Amino acid sequence: MAEKHSVKVQIDGKVITLAGYESDDYLQRVAFYLNNKILELKSLPGYGRMAPDERATLLELNIADDYFKAKAKVESMEEDIENKDQSTYDIKHDLVAAQMEIEKLRREVNRLRSIKKSEV
Amino acid sequence: MAEKHSVKVQIDGKVITLAGYESDDYLQRVAFYLNNKILELKSLPGYGRMAPDERATLLELNIADDYFKAKAKVESMEEDIENKDQSTYDIKHDLVAAQMEIEKLRREVNRLRSIKKSEV
Repeated sequence: MAEKHSVKVQIDGKVITLAGYESDDYLQRVAFYLNNKILELKSLPGYGRMAPDERATLLELNIADDYFKAKAKVESMEEDIENKDQSTYDIKHDLVAAQMEIEKLRREVNRLRSIKKSEV
Repeated sequence: MAEKHSVKVQIDGKVITLAGYESDDYLQRVAFYLNNKILELKSLPGYGRMAPDERATLLELNIADDYFKAKAKVESMEEDIENKDQSTYDIKHDLVAAQMEIEKLRREVNRLRSIKKSEV
């Protein structure tokens, strides 16, 4: 199990100490993502006039939107994987049937050849 | 194209008007998710002593964590789909080869049968 440790990250110019089991690299990537989001929002018209709690809510809604979009993609891919599995199952079934047909035909070829030989 | 409209949602007890192209239902689900997250965080020890900006950052990190986990799942599923596609491609190739073998054997059976007949 990973060890609990603390990491200092900078979010919106403030240094924050995070304690947890996630890797330093992971937490730095999360902080980087948040800082980019904040930069994006700062460029919006009207952001400068917003109260801190309004800015925070706007940021939270934006991150949640990214999360919901990623979650929708997971759901659609799960469906995609299910369809692919079904189609692979069908093709495997066809392959097994084809292999059985090959075996049957090979036996028939051998039988016909042996009759031919015994007739010679 | 969807029409821009505004929706009132309640986040952490405050009514907020959101304007955008997303459906009412979608925005209500996002608000519901945020409210659940906030409830979860409120039960953490030490949350009561946190400053509003610390609480906001904690919430943002938590949502971003959900987003990163969902994004990692998307990446792993993309890899999964790629492997499945490759395996299906291989099986389809085997099936085509098997079907060609069946054709060849059928011709051989017919040939041997016709020789037998002509010998009778």
